[in-house]
Amino acid sequence: MQHGGGASWGEVEGETVQFTEGMGGPRTGQSAPLDMAALLAPAEPSKIVCVGRNYLDHIRELGNDTGDLPTEPGIFLKGPNTLAEPGGTVDAPDWSDNFHFEGELALVIGTRAQGLTPENALAAVAGYTCGLDLTARDRQKTDLQWFRAKAADRFCPLGPWLETELDPADLRVQTRVNGDTLQDSRTSLMIFDVPAILAYVTRFVTLEPGDVVLTGTPSGVGPLKSGDTVEVEVEGIGVLVTQIG
Amino acid sequence: MQHGGGASWGEVEGETVQFTEGMGGPRTGQSAPLDMAALLAPAEPSKIVCVGRNYLDHIRELGNDTGDLPTEPGIFLKGPNTLAEPGGTVDAPDWSDNFHFEGELALVIGTRAQGLTPENALAAVAGYTCGLDLTARDRQKTDLQWFRAKAADRFCPLGPWLETELDPADLRVQTRVNGDTLQDSRTSLMIFDVPAILAYVTRFVTLEPGDVVLTGTPSGVGPLKSGDTVEVEVEGIGVLVTQIG
Repeated sequence: MQHGGGASWGEVEGETVQFTEGMGGPRTGQSAPLDMAALLAPAEPSKIVCVGRNYLDHIRELGNDTGDLPTEPGIFLKGPNTLAEPGGTVDAPDWSDNFHFEGELALVIGTRAQGLTPENALAAVAGYTCGLDLTARDRQKTDLQWFRAKAADRFCPLGPWLETELDPADLRVQTRVNGDTLQDSRTSLMIFDVPAILAYVTRFVTLEPGDVVLTGTPSGVGPLKSGDTVEVEVEGIGVLVTQIG
Repeated sequence: MQHGGGASWGEVEGETVQFTEGMGGPRTGQSAPLDMAALLAPAEPSKIVCVGRNYLDHIRELGNDTGDLPTEPGIFLKGPNTLAEPGGTVDAPDWSDNFHFEGELALVIGTRAQGLTPENALAAVAGYTCGLDLTARDRQKTDLQWFRAKAADRFCPLGPWLETELDPADLRVQTRVNGDTLQDSRTSLMIFDVPAILAYVTRFVTLEPGDVVLTGTPSGVGPLKSGDTVEVEVEGIGVLVTQIG
């Protein structure tokens, strides 16, 4: 979070932030009222690894249902340039006519991870948060790969904080636009659960502390316009609010 | 480069390395013989931005020629986990039966860049080097996006160093496998030249100092097997050697 002139990690304790040396590090002894801190995206990733098509109802709504469930997770990347802070404003791009919200459970890696198994994978997670995987739906179709469709600047609002004590197996995930609930599902309906995602990804890629994993979005995705307010709420974590500018 | 116990940037001056504070920073006054230094990939990227299908002959050899030239560059991402040092060994993956070399001109960004124009783009470049865009060709076809096909650990050998005084417009690019020249083209045959690539990418994404851009590969790509030696040579830069383990 931002306070005074600098940015720092901290632990939220009631209405107070206890500052720490880095993510999960020892407390510095300094603190501030939570309502005086400007929250930043709670991650310092070298990469953001995302799962596409991880809820059957979302596969169906986009017309991608071939009758067979995916046998392996479909993975794509966003860069650190995509992070945006909770409560922040993201401008609707002028190069897309179909700019979509995708609310999802996100997690941040705590320890360097290669070759995880489903059994030991969750021990590599520092904590869980809410992610908004902003998507230029039209550009997904026209472009060679999902580069500007998914990885343009500020296309990944994240927050409001990391919840470190949480079982990700069966959490309600909701997205509201201007107060209307448009996505409402549970992480238990993922095709690949969090341990399976982490085991798959770390067969190919070393995850570093601070790296982010987005776990996929359920059905209900739709277009955004300037002036919209998007809220992603994950049970047990909180609400990530993003304004569309 | 690596020397003693640590890693440092430096400037190569004849047979000597003059160490510097960071990329392009002031000299520290320390130096070492070049042949005593273990070279590292000369970049510290937050992201590696790559152009696919940027030479017409390569589009044709992969059967992707639809009769129309691309009107915009096709971009994809690799993460920092893909970097491998010059002279290093990269293991052929056991999850691909068609592991390909793609030799190309690479560049490293020197100054934070948004909204570049073709006219001012080259001023944002710190220097040029050789890149080997290792590719699991079979997994490009089977997977949702080019994640493990392009972005697995050590799939981006880079080096041997940055050439800071170079015009990228018309350089010979060659790839040799076990001494046989299999790719031999010129950067003047790119569909999108370096200024056009940088102007396009920075419409969507802010490039940071240390970020890498791979500019695409010409025709001649082909499979690698354990024991192969791959050399990527770009005129005016040098030779990047990679062993396949």
